[in-house]
Amino acid sequence: MSRSALASVLSQFKAPLETRRFDLPARPAPGAALVHTEMAGICGTDVHLWKGELPIQLPVILGHETVGRIKALGEGLRQDWTGQPLRVGDRVTWNSTTSCGACYYCAEKGQPTRCPQRRAYGIGYRCDEAPHFLGGYAEYHYLQPRATIFKIPDGLPTESVIGAGCALVTAIHGVERTGIEWRDLVVVQGAGPVGIAALAVAKSAGAARVIVVGGPPSRLETARRFGADETIDLTALPDPRQRLAAIRDLTGGHGADVVLECAGVPTAVVEGLEMCRDGGKYLVLGHYCDAGPVALNPHVITRKQLQVFGSWSSEPRHLKAALQFLADHRERFPFDTMVSHRFPVERAGEALELTARWACSKSVIVPA
Amino acid sequence: MSRSALASVLSQFKAPLETRRFDLPARPAPGAALVHTEMAGICGTDVHLWKGELPIQLPVILGHETVGRIKALGEGLRQDWTGQPLRVGDRVTWNSTTSCGACYYCAEKGQPTRCPQRRAYGIGYRCDEAPHFLGGYAEYHYLQPRATIFKIPDGLPTESVIGAGCALVTAIHGVERTGIEWRDLVVVQGAGPVGIAALAVAKSAGAARVIVVGGPPSRLETARRFGADETIDLTALPDPRQRLAAIRDLTGGHGADVVLECAGVPTAVVEGLEMCRDGGKYLVLGHYCDAGPVALNPHVITRKQLQVFGSWSSEPRHLKAALQFLADHRERFPFDTMVSHRFPVERAGEALELTARWACSKSVIVPA
Amino acid sequence: MSRSALASVLSQFKAPLETRRFDLPARPAPGAALVHTEMAGICGTDVHLWKGELPIQLPVILGHETVGRIKALGEGLRQDWTGQPLRVGDRVTWNSTTSCGACYYCAEKGQPTRCPQRRAYGIGYRCDEAPHFLGGYAEYHYLQPRATIFKIPDGLPTESVIGAGCALVTAIHGVERTGIEWRDLVVVQGAGPVGIAALAVAKSAGAARVIVVGGPPSRLETARRFGADETIDLTALPDPRQRLAAIRDLTGGHGADVVLECAGVPTAVVEGLEMCRDGGKYLVLGHYCDAGPVALNPHVITRKQLQVFGSWSSEPRHLKAALQFLADHRERFPFDTMVSHRFPVERAGEALELTARWACSKSVIVPA
Amino acid sequence: MSRSALASVLSQFKAPLETRRFDLPARPAPGAALVHTEMAGICGTDVHLWKGELPIQLPVILGHETVGRIKALGEGLRQDWTGQPLRVGDRVTWNSTTSCGACYYCAEKGQPTRCPQRRAYGIGYRCDEAPHFLGGYAEYHYLQPRATIFKIPDGLPTESVIGAGCALVTAIHGVERTGIEWRDLVVVQGAGPVGIAALAVAKSAGAARVIVVGGPPSRLETARRFGADETIDLTALPDPRQRLAAIRDLTGGHGADVVLECAGVPTAVVEGLEMCRDGGKYLVLGHYCDAGPVALNPHVITRKQLQVFGSWSSEPRHLKAALQFLADHRERFPFDTMVSHRFPVERAGEALELTARWACSKSVIVPA
Repeated sequence: MSRSALASVLSQFKAPLETRRFDLPARPAPGAALVHTEMAGICGTDVHLWKGELPIQLPVILGHETVGRIKALGEGLRQDWTGQPLRVGDRVTWNSTTSCGACYYCAEKGQPTRCPQRRAYGIGYRCDEAPHFLGGYAEYHYLQPRATIFKIPDGLPTESVIGAGCALVTAIHGVERTGIEWRDLVVVQGAGPVGIAALAVAKSAGAARVIVVGGPPSRLETARRFGADETIDLTALPDPRQRLAAIRDLTGGHGADVVLECAGVPTAVVEGLEMCRDGGKYLVLGHYCDAGPVALNPHVITRKQLQVFGSWSSEPRHLKAALQFLADHRERFPFDTMVSHRFPVERAGEALELTARWACSKSVIVPA
Repeated sequence: MSRSALASVLSQFKAPLETRRFDLPARPAPGAALVHTEMAGICGTDVHLWKGELPIQLPVILGHETVGRIKALGEGLRQDWTGQPLRVGDRVTWNSTTSCGACYYCAEKGQPTRCPQRRAYGIGYRCDEAPHFLGGYAEYHYLQPRATIFKIPDGLPTESVIGAGCALVTAIHGVERTGIEWRDLVVVQGAGPVGIAALAVAKSAGAARVIVVGGPPSRLETARRFGADETIDLTALPDPRQRLAAIRDLTGGHGADVVLECAGVPTAVVEGLEMCRDGGKYLVLGHYCDAGPVALNPHVITRKQLQVFGSWSSEPRHLKAALQFLADHRERFPFDTMVSHRFPVERAGEALELTARWACSKSVIVPA
Repeated sequence: MSRSALASVLSQFKAPLETRRFDLPARPAPGAALVHTEMAGICGTDVHLWKGELPIQLPVILGHETVGRIKALGEGLRQDWTGQPLRVGDRVTWNSTTSCGACYYCAEKGQPTRCPQRRAYGIGYRCDEAPHFLGGYAEYHYLQPRATIFKIPDGLPTESVIGAGCALVTAIHGVERTGIEWRDLVVVQGAGPVGIAALAVAKSAGAARVIVVGGPPSRLETARRFGADETIDLTALPDPRQRLAAIRDLTGGHGADVVLECAGVPTAVVEGLEMCRDGGKYLVLGHYCDAGPVALNPHVITRKQLQVFGSWSSEPRHLKAALQFLADHRERFPFDTMVSHRFPVERAGEALELTARWACSKSVIVPA
Repeated sequence: MSRSALASVLSQFKAPLETRRFDLPARPAPGAALVHTEMAGICGTDVHLWKGELPIQLPVILGHETVGRIKALGEGLRQDWTGQPLRVGDRVTWNSTTSCGACYYCAEKGQPTRCPQRRAYGIGYRCDEAPHFLGGYAEYHYLQPRATIFKIPDGLPTESVIGAGCALVTAIHGVERTGIEWRDLVVVQGAGPVGIAALAVAKSAGAARVIVVGGPPSRLETARRFGADETIDLTALPDPRQRLAAIRDLTGGHGADVVLECAGVPTAVVEGLEMCRDGGKYLVLGHYCDAGPVALNPHVITRKQLQVFGSWSSEPRHLKAALQFLADHRERFPFDTMVSHRFPVERAGEALELTARWACSKSVIVPA
């Protein structure tokens, strides 16, 4: 094994990523692991991080959606999160964050995604300190003790896992919190990665019909490929009143039972609450970043007797379910086809730029 | 029985109420009833109606919180909603609205308070057409077929029923939709009638501690009399950041498990979402009237992983529960003491004006 | 229209059905309707009724699963339950029972299927009194006021509706009460009509995998055609311990998240509770008839921390959902293929006998 | 500190307990603690253990309800479960079991009480191996790393904590799983420690009325002291049909919304299911030990459309809530008065015998 390896480093916001070489750890600490990166996804959040819109410390190796092969296992690490044996050479993925399991949120309130101890790979670790390799845009990835690691089923391509990315587990958690009843009429606002994932989860969770509102046309085409029963193009119906009328037409005049916001645009929330039927449910899922306030009338929530849910990140059990889901539905939900552009570590900056320009379906890093 | 009776009529928004005499129906229609008004409450909503802030048709007899004694029963009306026999002379109250029981919202979606057939006594009926007496500010009240009528338990004073008013059933429904877990820490925003009622319901529904945020001091004094564990005076802590800090101090640093908004002020919603612990629940209950939008950041709902609920009006079963609750807890929750000022029908305008000036705890109409 | 029509009548338990002619009503009462029977299903419950195992009054026209065409509409009946206009000639079906909408169970507790006013067509009405035609095994069917009628979508064959029968709405209600989480592992006990319907609902409600335990092989073949991921043949594994071991093997050693009992055999309940993982859910759906007690250890429920649900009959909203579901999934869940044998009214007894001998998939009555 | 200490040891089922002296650990391991026992409760389960009715390994120091003062803290143990600082001399209690936090039941299914790693102090540890002191009937108690320890609030007497015992946390968990709605009518079957605790939890969780069915009269007197609205004496009404009639009379003819079984007698389950209203809820809480099967008719669960819940043991958050609850309601729920008989360690056998004969309210061990 080499003594050092390459990583793409964000040292200054909005500046080009830099390729650097760091020492690899001699051997993983007890409970830790070293993984050779096979593929790392570029997530929309990475663009926000690059722009400095979230409070992180630099320098950092971006990348929180990663698949790799185990190179070395620390003492005592013998099983993946599901209890399967772990061996050098196994292809694995993992949750980007780990909760402490013992705090007020983890142990008392059952909200582990709000554990204050959580730090995310590819976001929350400086890379100028050992073990350096704590993000995906690099040749290796270090997994700290208590990381939640999952062997990837043999028949499941790496492209499926990275094509689904963190969007899928985020959507799984959000839909779980919201609850879709059998035969519900569902609207998804947004046709980006989270919207497509929410569509797939909703369709397989019992929705009678899923309507996707978004754009551009290529993304709506993807939505239809993933089973959207109807799509509404934002540019074809630029006025929110037109879109609301369209939703009412498609839902017997009442509005949707469930609306899943995956747009990240504050005005979408105001529009989406109106798309719910009275007594309906609304999930605010796309506001992972703080895009600021919007003029919202609380009277709407009272009068329509709504339920509004938030959902943050995901738990290990969601990743376990995601991998089984991807393996079971390769044809129905072809997440592998989302991967559109591949770059070596040294060109990670180009991959990020492509994502920032919305010029790709999904760019990924594939170390040489 | 007299052939006609007095009523106080709203003929023009913001103008003085007028006392008028209307013919009483010769006999109630099948399933209907005629009631002699014993007491009618003035609700804050009546002030909004008087100002023309809600879309109603004039002229109208205001008053949707009423107790009376049955004067005549229409053919076939033999039982109250709970199955008890109904007889002339019985003291009764009733829901101000009736759902159709058969529509999409009533029968399919279990949201009868959103039934489009609902019209409220004291709000939704013109009084210049027979049977005229469809509001509380009058000597008589006509109850149409399918009205949901309840005999009042013998030991329960009329003052308790009217002192609790529509605020109590509204709060019962709202807390039911939100769900208070045993030993939850609860914040109530607002110390008006709905806030006091929400406090009483929360205390008796298992909350470990209820903190009331509001004013003026006399209302907070009432809150303490109804069992508030802590009160926070809006004038003593005028800055929302101070109030948030106070809530955090009182909740182990985390925020409340449940926040019940009973203030009707849009900014209270923004403040209240911050008062929730992560993964907590928020009820928007006070926004019965449309007080306009507020700048609200959807990111807060996502990041804090909140659940936000709306609740509209109430169902007959809530009124049944309310009457039993009032009868069981006359000492602990002395709603009868809320009734502070009494007026005859002819002086209903004064009663309304007093309420509009917030100069009373609860004004009521007591026909001579 | 003819003045009288044929019906097949059960006059004495365990005796042959008799063909009789009754007068048709001159015109339906206000709110009622007269329907010309197109097809009526024979349900397993009909066999129990024929044997006298349920407390009913004779004579009766059996048949509670019926499709027909409207022959005459009573005054005021203009819409079906969903609000669609109703006209003579429309093809319709309906719930076999109607709840009162006003009693303790209907209005206060939200359990309309337990309304004491319910009487079922084909079960609870004597046929020797007008309007006689209150069961399916007849040329006509009378629908009383307040019946919940549904127009059948144009593309949906009558065979699909009758092939699904009351088993489908029963399963929909039961699965709704139990709640299947996305990606749950589900076991269905029983491969008869209710088991097949529960399988279809579970598969489309988000189950990751559904295992059907039952027999004979032809029914398990049907189960596989309806998407069962695994089937366990009762005769191949006659010992309950073998079956339990098989379920554990198929569920990672833990047992199923949800077990749906659709067998009607008391010992199946004891076996099924063991098939649940700890903290799992169990639905007792197949015990519509009283098949007597079984030796059950309550300690199992405590120690395994189970949730056990019962579910009775169904509500109109379940029939609405069922019709849409059947129309949406004609290929995936081919309920029309369940209809295997057709008989005229005069030979209804043969149809019933075939069902009693388990010698058919589904026998139906098709008036000449 | 002494080098050794006394313990009362169960070496042979049904034989007298033996007093033995074991070496104390020189110092607690990292994360562990040594506690000087202040009071240990005798639980009914201890009688079952003594009789050999549960599969445990001997010799064992019984006692899983214990309060003590910290004598020594292992390295790294600085806080109790709620985050309060822990110091030598602090009065503490703890959960008798600890879950692993990482397994299928802990991390994936949210059922930590079913974690296969759990072993209970006073039940699951041999005492002939160091650190010996892993049960309550002894002068000292050793707390292993990851034990969930709670400081006891200053104003809360040790008698309250031990008087409530494991019955209270068991009842809290059971009622949480079942869910009591505001104003529910509740029946508690059994007036022993679990029944009294369930009564207290139900009363404070929103029940409108709680009826306790049990005996003997002294226990029913305790139930009334703890707020039972009605009590039904098993000896006064020896026939289950009489008791069922009494429950119906007290619940408007319908049966209870929720029935909590705290009797441990299998026939109570059959009787209790009948005490539920249709659509009601039933908790099987008293069957911690395996008392064998009972003839139960599954048709009852289907026809009455019931929900039946099991609940096993409790989680740390339940103990946190229990301590706050006890501190808040010393007057209303006087659990301290349950402690009736005190014995030194050397006479633990007498204490156990008293409990076995039902001759005491609660016997406790108080080291000299």
